[in-house]
Amino acid sequence: MTEISLKQRIVAAGIELDTTKMKFAESDRSKLEAQVSRALAAMRELEGGAISNADEKRRVGHYWLRNVDKAPAELRVGINQAREAVCAFAKTIREKKDRFRRFLLIGIGGSALGPQMVYDGLRSPGNTPALFTLDNTDPTGMQRVFDDLGSLDDVLCIVVSKGGSTRETQNGMAVTETQFAAAGLNFRDHAVAVTGVGSTLDKLASDQEWVARFPIEDWVGGRTSLFSPVGLLPAALLGFDVDRLLRGARDMDEATRGEIMTQNPAMLMALAWHSAVELSGRGNLVILPYCDRLVLFSRYLQQLVMESLGKDGHGITVYGNKGSSDQHSYIQQLREGTADFTAMFLQPLRQDADWIVEKQGDVSVTVGDYLAAFLDGTQTALHEAGRPSMRLCFEHVDEYHLGALIALFERAVGFYASFIGINAYHQPGVQAGKLAAAAVIDLQETLVSFLDQHQGREVGVSEIAAHTGQDPVIVHDMLRRLAVSKQSGVTSSSELLGYSPSRRFGYQKS
Amino acid sequence: MTEISLKQRIVAAGIELDTTKMKFAESDRSKLEAQVSRALAAMRELEGGAISNADEKRRVGHYWLRNVDKAPAELRVGINQAREAVCAFAKTIREKKDRFRRFLLIGIGGSALGPQMVYDGLRSPGNTPALFTLDNTDPTGMQRVFDDLGSLDDVLCIVVSKGGSTRETQNGMAVTETQFAAAGLNFRDHAVAVTGVGSTLDKLASDQEWVARFPIEDWVGGRTSLFSPVGLLPAALLGFDVDRLLRGARDMDEATRGEIMTQNPAMLMALAWHSAVELSGRGNLVILPYCDRLVLFSRYLQQLVMESLGKDGHGITVYGNKGSSDQHSYIQQLREGTADFTAMFLQPLRQDADWIVEKQGDVSVTVGDYLAAFLDGTQTALHEAGRPSMRLCFEHVDEYHLGALIALFERAVGFYASFIGINAYHQPGVQAGKLAAAAVIDLQETLVSFLDQHQGREVGVSEIAAHTGQDPVIVHDMLRRLAVSKQSGVTSSSELLGYSPSRRFGYQKS
Repeated sequence: MTEISLKQRIVAAGIELDTTKMKFAESDRSKLEAQVSRALAAMRELEGGAISNADEKRRVGHYWLRNVDKAPAELRVGINQAREAVCAFAKTIREKKDRFRRFLLIGIGGSALGPQMVYDGLRSPGNTPALFTLDNTDPTGMQRVFDDLGSLDDVLCIVVSKGGSTRETQNGMAVTETQFAAAGLNFRDHAVAVTGVGSTLDKLASDQEWVARFPIEDWVGGRTSLFSPVGLLPAALLGFDVDRLLRGARDMDEATRGEIMTQNPAMLMALAWHSAVELSGRGNLVILPYCDRLVLFSRYLQQLVMESLGKDGHGITVYGNKGSSDQHSYIQQLREGTADFTAMFLQPLRQDADWIVEKQGDVSVTVGDYLAAFLDGTQTALHEAGRPSMRLCFEHVDEYHLGALIALFERAVGFYASFIGINAYHQPGVQAGKLAAAAVIDLQETLVSFLDQHQGREVGVSEIAAHTGQDPVIVHDMLRRLAVSKQSGVTSSSELLGYSPSRRFGYQKS
Repeated sequence: MTEISLKQRIVAAGIELDTTKMKFAESDRSKLEAQVSRALAAMRELEGGAISNADEKRRVGHYWLRNVDKAPAELRVGINQAREAVCAFAKTIREKKDRFRRFLLIGIGGSALGPQMVYDGLRSPGNTPALFTLDNTDPTGMQRVFDDLGSLDDVLCIVVSKGGSTRETQNGMAVTETQFAAAGLNFRDHAVAVTGVGSTLDKLASDQEWVARFPIEDWVGGRTSLFSPVGLLPAALLGFDVDRLLRGARDMDEATRGEIMTQNPAMLMALAWHSAVELSGRGNLVILPYCDRLVLFSRYLQQLVMESLGKDGHGITVYGNKGSSDQHSYIQQLREGTADFTAMFLQPLRQDADWIVEKQGDVSVTVGDYLAAFLDGTQTALHEAGRPSMRLCFEHVDEYHLGALIALFERAVGFYASFIGINAYHQPGVQAGKLAAAAVIDLQETLVSFLDQHQGREVGVSEIAAHTGQDPVIVHDMLRRLAVSKQSGVTSSSELLGYSPSRRFGYQKS
């Protein structure tokens, strides 16, 4: 048995990964090499165009988006055309400055998290137009977004949905249409679609002659869609350099194809996670960027990591906000509480601005020096307490480094999935909640129709449940919520909270 | 042995807690009653004025803030005076509408999370003035806040720090003073302090004759300071009803003093957490408000729960954003991945606005119906997969219910701490990181002073390390970061990333 040390500090695509404060469970060279070659082989097959998402019978092609030469020959023209169309469209919009000055993204999950994170990471007040988002089916939340927006004259809506039938996005679009109509504006003159070719959304946008349409390829999954028009269109419209975003990712892809595990940061990261999670039971991954601009990065990674790996009883739980703020929140638990996590520090080395706050003789200490000191201090304190951590260090939060960071995590997730033998590219568990939700909407129709037959009198929960064959508690909860809503027509003279089978509900046709 | 069922649905202070989808490890009545009485007794002592935070020799009095009759007699006048002073001041400021129209909060951790959460939870565009925050020592982040603010003429700064020496807050204040000076304005005419009486900040504000000062009592901890001037002042300035906020919390306090465990929601919640964490190893608590307005609630709870309970190897890890958005992110893992969590759903029943998006005959389905259906569907799907969850249901996100929710979690945390025998009111682990950070700043002075002695020539890392008695890697990392900073005077002709002991650094006096 020859040993290999996975405690390394390596640099790729402008990102330095430091694993010297990690604990690795395995150091036997031959065992590690076998594990690593299997993961590399799986990734080569994926990049070669295999059906890597077997359940959905799909290829997995997000790596092709940043290096078209790696794509199957028949896909290259399409990839280039989409990117060029995005850039040309954004250029036109940005040149006509008076037409569209603000953007409203309508999308959820993979269609929203990336653009939101990139916007918050890179926006510069005065230069970057404002990006608003409808990323839920919360009507109160939507109302607030429209109140924040005020006038809609200068707003371009970007509707993003691969299949076109995501319910939250459909609802967001329906409400937005209403708002535009109320303002005397035509939604179609303010709308672009980013969607799969031939989807319901694609057809709608085509029929209604929206401002533009951009494709999401079948082989692009939601959580890895940032380098497709899903992420590129908002980025380009906001004035960010999409070429540098793509280049950062492409360079990291190149570096993380390397076969020498100690020189491949994605492999090293995946091995570090594997040691922590599967072998030491440290299932949580705390993302700590010492940088206000990256406060949404952990939310982006939550989806990328948890939706990819959270299956068959496996999973890595991702959370975190930003340092040093979080030191005043949950670092107490990281240092002295349950040892169930790996911490991942992110540090941009260069600040856009800084101020000297202390002078000791000739030596000046700045606001940013304190930020760095808190990072060092916290990592040291965790290390002393036996808590493993990694650090990612890079020059600056910009398009190139953001692209490289995302590519690094994407590939680490892919390798990790190989280690534990799961398909990282589907999300079967999401379907269950959607189906259950559809059943809830069906039940709403059943219950309201039943009450409709008794117009004029209130009926007790037990009676409704018995006649409709439903659980009384479920009947009760649905009707009491509807009784609070203005639009439903459901009435009740009872208390709102608690459960009582004798509670009575009625219906008034509107 | 007589059994007791902890699967309940109970209502207190406008909040309905439903634990019927939880798993409880213990149902033996006498065992539970003993555990519960100990926790209630500890809480009675705390509320009676005992030194409940023994390590810091402090009383713990946040419950007194919302019901002054429960406070020790000698404290009552002070509590009332502080609240009245906050309300009177806010009234004056709000009446002079043209003077201060926007607010800048300078604080971190418990001094920022509460006001940020309340602002995002309750703000109403057009009515609520804007609240900006400096809650970190990130200079790039600060620059962006000032760029967002633009003119400072109408900005009132609220500096919040109990001891007055929190470094991040000091730095935020120093930079803010610079910005006001650069705009030709006097910071003191735009500043109020919320701080402990006699603190360095209190003295500074007094000496410089700031606009106003408000006290933080010694017996108020950062993470439970929302009902002290820390939370009340921003809330009142923003136009929120602080009386209703206090009343919601007071009513919940009253309800959660009850001795019958199945009627005390804080006790039931604490027992549910205890079953999940200590007895079943489900250490994570996922907070899922189906409500855009409560997206920061989990961040608030992260501090309250993790800083209180994360010690002596214990802890509950809190994360979450909002539903149904998170269904498109990590719900996959909750349903099919590691079964290491309890989910906590939050549901406001009434929407401020809603839109009909479907009609099936007479039955209309709204945007909000879908939100509710996704919640029901997701909870059902988790339940079917054997994942325990709770639900908190209430009429509306407003001052009263927010106050009640916070009080509910505060007391549940207190009970839980009793169960596992820890002090919920100190945070010894935070100190280690701060001390380590101070050592880092000292090292910076050592290294720069050393380089200063060699002005004009660059020195290698190994040599610097040997002469200063420091670890070469630490020396290297600090100097390369300083070499990127404009203010430090440290120079290097080398590459930025990676580590090399032969790298050379110099110093140019500015």
